Amino acid sequence: MSKYIIGIDVGGTNVKLGLVNGKGDIIGRLSFSTKNVAATPEKLTAAICEAAGAILRKDRIPKDMISGVGVGLPGLVDVKNGIVRVLPNIPGWKDVLLRKAMEKKLGLAVRLENDVNMIALGEWQYGAGKGLTDAMFVTLGTGVGAGLILNGAIYRGPGFAAGEIGHIPLNEGGPVCGCGGWGCFERYVGNQELRQIAAKMFNEPDIALEEIYNKAVEGKKKALKFWDMIGERVGNGLVGPVNLLNPQAIVVGGGVARSFAFLEPAIVRTLRRRSMRTQGEMVRVIKAQLDDDAGIIGARVLLHT
Amino acid sequence: MSKYIIGIDVGGTNVKLGLVNGKGDIIGRLSFSTKNVAATPEKLTAAICEAAGAILRKDRIPKDMISGVGVGLPGLVDVKNGIVRVLPNIPGWKDVLLRKAMEKKLGLAVRLENDVNMIALGEWQYGAGKGLTDAMFVTLGTGVGAGLILNGAIYRGPGFAAGEIGHIPLNEGGPVCGCGGWGCFERYVGNQELRQIAAKMFNEPDIALEEIYNKAVEGKKKALKFWDMIGERVGNGLVGPVNLLNPQAIVVGGGVARSFAFLEPAIVRTLRRRSMRTQGEMVRVIKAQLDDDAGIIGARVLLHT
Repeated sequence: MSKYIIGIDVGGTNVKLGLVNGKGDIIGRLSFSTKNVAATPEKLTAAICEAAGAILRKDRIPKDMISGVGVGLPGLVDVKNGIVRVLPNIPGWKDVLLRKAMEKKLGLAVRLENDVNMIALGEWQYGAGKGLTDAMFVTLGTGVGAGLILNGAIYRGPGFAAGEIGHIPLNEGGPVCGCGGWGCFERYVGNQELRQIAAKMFNEPDIALEEIYNKAVEGKKKALKFWDMIGERVGNGLVGPVNLLNPQAIVVGGGVARSFAFLEPAIVRTLRRRSMRTQGEMVRVIKAQLDDDAGIIGARVLLHT
Repeated sequence: MSKYIIGIDVGGTNVKLGLVNGKGDIIGRLSFSTKNVAATPEKLTAAICEAAGAILRKDRIPKDMISGVGVGLPGLVDVKNGIVRVLPNIPGWKDVLLRKAMEKKLGLAVRLENDVNMIALGEWQYGAGKGLTDAMFVTLGTGVGAGLILNGAIYRGPGFAAGEIGHIPLNEGGPVCGCGGWGCFERYVGNQELRQIAAKMFNEPDIALEEIYNKAVEGKKKALKFWDMIGERVGNGLVGPVNLLNPQAIVVGGGVARSFAFLEPAIVRTLRRRSMRTQGEMVRVIKAQLDDDAGIIGARVLLHT
């Protein structure tokens, strides 16, 4: 496939677009702030379509060189029918027929996907997951989610809601979660919780996770201890899905994955210790490779598989 | 497919054979005690093959009317290569080339499967799971396991070890489990635990679960409370896999499922309360239909899909 695709990663803060060639390289980029245009779904859709046109003009790519447009969205997406069901962090999006609207405006084939699944698709085919048939692509950030590749295909679930690894309960009496449940994995390893632990541990109310990463690079013991403890928490949350799905690998991405080198030993140690034998011996823990580009590159996989 | 198949359900106590017609009906049966012949894998294999021949002779079925033999085994089975990796409750089974040995002895196509997956296949195509594409078939008994139907196919995992729902941890500091982990779902709803709870609650050290079922049928409050509490425990253990996989249904089988009518309200209540919205609203909780026959009937699905 020598044509290009346009990958669009819609986030609560920014919308990022990329022109992706047949090798999965991003050869053109464009982004804009979601906030300025997110007043209504119509305005945001118009801005996305405008930007898609602009990225082609900027790089002087004729439209017939584009085989399609893939859009990753932070919420519940009916992939089959091209409908955005709900975006928790972008107000007003409820059952929006985004695919149809974009196809009409752009005159190009459009496919929608959940953003976490899009990242999984990108990492799977062009990043850390090459050659795997069964893997969990976990994103550690403010939220904790996963894209599941099972039997060599993305597994979305019949309601397009699969992959919510961050909402597997880890304790019967654990803290209440925004999802309506309690004791969820995300409540133990989400950024908000990590910052609270850090503030206590370092006795600095506003210490940034990046700073603790830097301290760990410098070999500071307390910082190494912090990431080791977080790694153990991550490992504890992965035991259940590892026992249930027996994946070949867990690919760890998201902001916290920057500290992967400091998290990994504790994740692996905890998995080996607490998982079942076959599952624990088989599963590898790998760092994601594509960083923020996975959600754009994944669009190529979505459109061509 | 008008031919018959032979389904064989190998358990730690009994080996059960059934002749299954094209409609999924068992039209002939035979069983023998595992204990008497389980001294070595060779002896048990010989006894199974002998019984397979006997069931045909008994019903005067010529061998060319049999399209294949499916064997469910209580342990780790390499389905692809026809190798029994290990059977925890039947000593001596380690990397046994059972498929090859049986095919040679019987002159019929043989396929092996894990027993819990075999039950899932049977219930899926001929029982409570008809028409579903994404479901968990949970067996509640001494052990707690599940067969996973995902994207319209059985999901075994790359190491054939998927489905261990009973070993999803529910508490960070929970009781140690035979699997090497701790806090596992099975430690909260396995038969052994249920009997301990029952003994305390009814102040009778040897009270049988069947008796508490009977008391519940009679409307005895304490018995109803017992099953409600167990249902809540079951529901709590299902929240994680429901959020992760977004199944259409959970089909509940195994010995404890006899009390399904008394468990169901608490299972559903807990799932609705603690699961994520999309997942919790979608998932149905259904009673298995085929009882002990699912593991025999499943062989038909294994051989013909």
